[in-house]
Amino acid sequence: MRLSRYFLPILRETPKEAEIVSHRLMLRAGMIRQEASGIYAWLPLGLRVLQKVGQIVREEMDRAGAIELLMPTLQLADLWRETGRYEAYGPEMLRIVDRHKRELLYGPTNEDMITEIFRAYIRSYRDLPKILYHIQWKFRDEQRPRFGVMRGREFLMKDAYSFDVDEASSRLSYNRMFVSYLRIFARMGLRAIPMRAETGPIGGDLSHEFIILAQTGESGVFCHADVLNLPVPGEDIDYDADLTPVIEAWTRLYAATEDVHDAARFERETPEDKRIHTRGIEVGQVFYFGDKYSKPMQALIAGPDGVERPFQGGSYGVGVSRLVGALIEANHDEAGIIWPEAVAPFRIGLANLKVGDGATDAACAELYAAFQKAGVDVLYDDTDERPGAKFAKLDLIGLPYQVIVGPKGLAEGKVEVKTRATGDRQSYPLAEAVARLTEA
Amino acid sequence: MRLSRYFLPILRETPKEAEIVSHRLMLRAGMIRQEASGIYAWLPLGLRVLQKVGQIVREEMDRAGAIELLMPTLQLADLWRETGRYEAYGPEMLRIVDRHKRELLYGPTNEDMITEIFRAYIRSYRDLPKILYHIQWKFRDEQRPRFGVMRGREFLMKDAYSFDVDEASSRLSYNRMFVSYLRIFARMGLRAIPMRAETGPIGGDLSHEFIILAQTGESGVFCHADVLNLPVPGEDIDYDADLTPVIEAWTRLYAATEDVHDAARFERETPEDKRIHTRGIEVGQVFYFGDKYSKPMQALIAGPDGVERPFQGGSYGVGVSRLVGALIEANHDEAGIIWPEAVAPFRIGLANLKVGDGATDAACAELYAAFQKAGVDVLYDDTDERPGAKFAKLDLIGLPYQVIVGPKGLAEGKVEVKTRATGDRQSYPLAEAVARLTEA
Repeated sequence: MRLSRYFLPILRETPKEAEIVSHRLMLRAGMIRQEASGIYAWLPLGLRVLQKVGQIVREEMDRAGAIELLMPTLQLADLWRETGRYEAYGPEMLRIVDRHKRELLYGPTNEDMITEIFRAYIRSYRDLPKILYHIQWKFRDEQRPRFGVMRGREFLMKDAYSFDVDEASSRLSYNRMFVSYLRIFARMGLRAIPMRAETGPIGGDLSHEFIILAQTGESGVFCHADVLNLPVPGEDIDYDADLTPVIEAWTRLYAATEDVHDAARFERETPEDKRIHTRGIEVGQVFYFGDKYSKPMQALIAGPDGVERPFQGGSYGVGVSRLVGALIEANHDEAGIIWPEAVAPFRIGLANLKVGDGATDAACAELYAAFQKAGVDVLYDDTDERPGAKFAKLDLIGLPYQVIVGPKGLAEGKVEVKTRATGDRQSYPLAEAVARLTEA
Repeated sequence: MRLSRYFLPILRETPKEAEIVSHRLMLRAGMIRQEASGIYAWLPLGLRVLQKVGQIVREEMDRAGAIELLMPTLQLADLWRETGRYEAYGPEMLRIVDRHKRELLYGPTNEDMITEIFRAYIRSYRDLPKILYHIQWKFRDEQRPRFGVMRGREFLMKDAYSFDVDEASSRLSYNRMFVSYLRIFARMGLRAIPMRAETGPIGGDLSHEFIILAQTGESGVFCHADVLNLPVPGEDIDYDADLTPVIEAWTRLYAATEDVHDAARFERETPEDKRIHTRGIEVGQVFYFGDKYSKPMQALIAGPDGVERPFQGGSYGVGVSRLVGALIEANHDEAGIIWPEAVAPFRIGLANLKVGDGATDAACAELYAAFQKAGVDVLYDDTDERPGAKFAKLDLIGLPYQVIVGPKGLAEGKVEVKTRATGDRQSYPLAEAVARLTEA
């Protein structure tokens, strides 16, 4: 992409309304624009990250055997009356009346609707287990939206739902999603710790929040230091095999949010030099809730014995839009964002330091074509801004590699490659720069 | 994907509420489920088609130089008051009040919001031309939703917006989108005819609807028969070159919707044996509207002369979810859907006619692995249904190729390959079947 043709509105000043670093950087780097309180437009650079995060979530859900569908954003109020949640949900639910005076709502979550879909088609244990998921916009009418996309009102969430004939089987589905979550966050370069947590308005008796440790986190957390070094299963993980050893390794050490924290147990189980008490950002949560929805909605499954019973369920959420903010909270410095490669909007920023100079333009054109041919995402700064502004912009938007092309280097046949994360700078002949940055 | 693990709820009976064939077939083939009047959940098979249609639109927008962003579904009422559209839009606009009594609406289109975004960042003719687009859910509170996804209330639309400093340049952007639309529909195997059309609530003085001829279409259309045989530009089209010859070829022959039909001109310009009068389905519309939004919203651009003026704009819509229905209207027979390859949910349906038979299971496993390794989407019917039911299901869901594996053929070392569109059946050794169905 040529920057002269792109739409990347960088802000020079730091926006005053932004309280945390990810919000400030997303505004300054032209990733988002606020359209109403807690409602954002995703500008081109931000959307590229959102799409990459969503695609990683999708690939890992598919790998774990979950099936993708897509439920609508608006739902019938009557559906939520079946479970008693229409009244119970409170003011965070955005309630809507259409032209025919029918009551709708903008879905804050989808347990009720997915149960309705399941009930309409599935009757037999032979069709189970199933895990269905979608990635869709949700709305929660927060009293006080803040922190940019970290606590917005309109937000993109992946929510998965499991359907099983009995509790033992449902725990297996829970374990699949648990392992899938370990992989999702690891692929983005994040270390997310599963912590025992409150079940809240979803309900149920078993839940883990997946939490990134960060001083700017919204809640206090307590954990054993060794949980930060546990291995994450590789992509060859067999989801049909027994996942218990993985789950046990990840739940054996103490890790809990302050809501369910048990100080005595923490001190008993965790040596003093291993005790971590810090703050964390929730990026995902898994729930086992049994028949909480299937029972009131009479979503019944005939078992091998022919007897009908409500299915056993769980739900599994990942905040896709929130993750974009969380990724920045975990990856930035004074100069701006430092994207992990897997979610970077472009892999390479190519800076032409002397637009209009024949040799520099030709070298940039050659590099740009070579990167494109190799299928590498590259943003080519072909504008006539001065070098200092180009460097600052590339540091701010945080692409993993910068390729800097100017007459001085080219006189020696070289271009400079800067690695954003380390600040390391090396000069290479053009062909070598291409080879190094396009190898898988 | 193994059918035993998939979620494909086929309906045996023809749903009574469905008035047109695409709606009936989408319900029967387990593609969608109605969640409220005009509001649908996209079940896994339907979602795969929706995603493929969306991806073709995205690729062709990118090829034409348009830049993707993503605006939210909800918008502030005050934004629409700036252009006078909040009052003018009428009961099709879904109006919403949040917990703080702020007036919102579910966006039916995005001219106002994109103008607000543009106004916030772009001031100079040097940043133009620009075409920005997004693919997002919209809502229009239709008085009487019908025809399934063809006239739903919550629908997925691609809408692009062009920004230019003067009218001449704006016509060039219009031409780009016009050519891009020719390519989008052609890639899906559809022949969409650009027809002069009313501008309606978007406004402006130039508009074309892209229309597929179909007896079940919602509006009458008149055109010259030769327009059905015009060549569509290839993927090597240069969008920076002069596109006038393409536009002239496609607009020279008479083609108009009944709203703007001029009978005298039609008869004067079109020989009697070339006159087509039929019905059509609108799948896209392009508008040039000048300063209709930029003027009231004071979205000003400084020209080369330093003088500020409102930008000249156009908007360009493709009904992504509607296209799924339109594709079925244009591609079906008595037995079900016949997907064009580019949008088929899976390329191949693999039918095991004797599950449990060692040789048949082994042959299917081999084929399934070979197709997956080649990166071909395959749906493997590994259920214990009888062969007749499997054949009917594969015909109904309309995958381009069926690979039928049973003990009889395997005794001769062969499997049968049926081409859904032609009904052609050929027997091949396994390796040859794989080779024929995986070649690009």
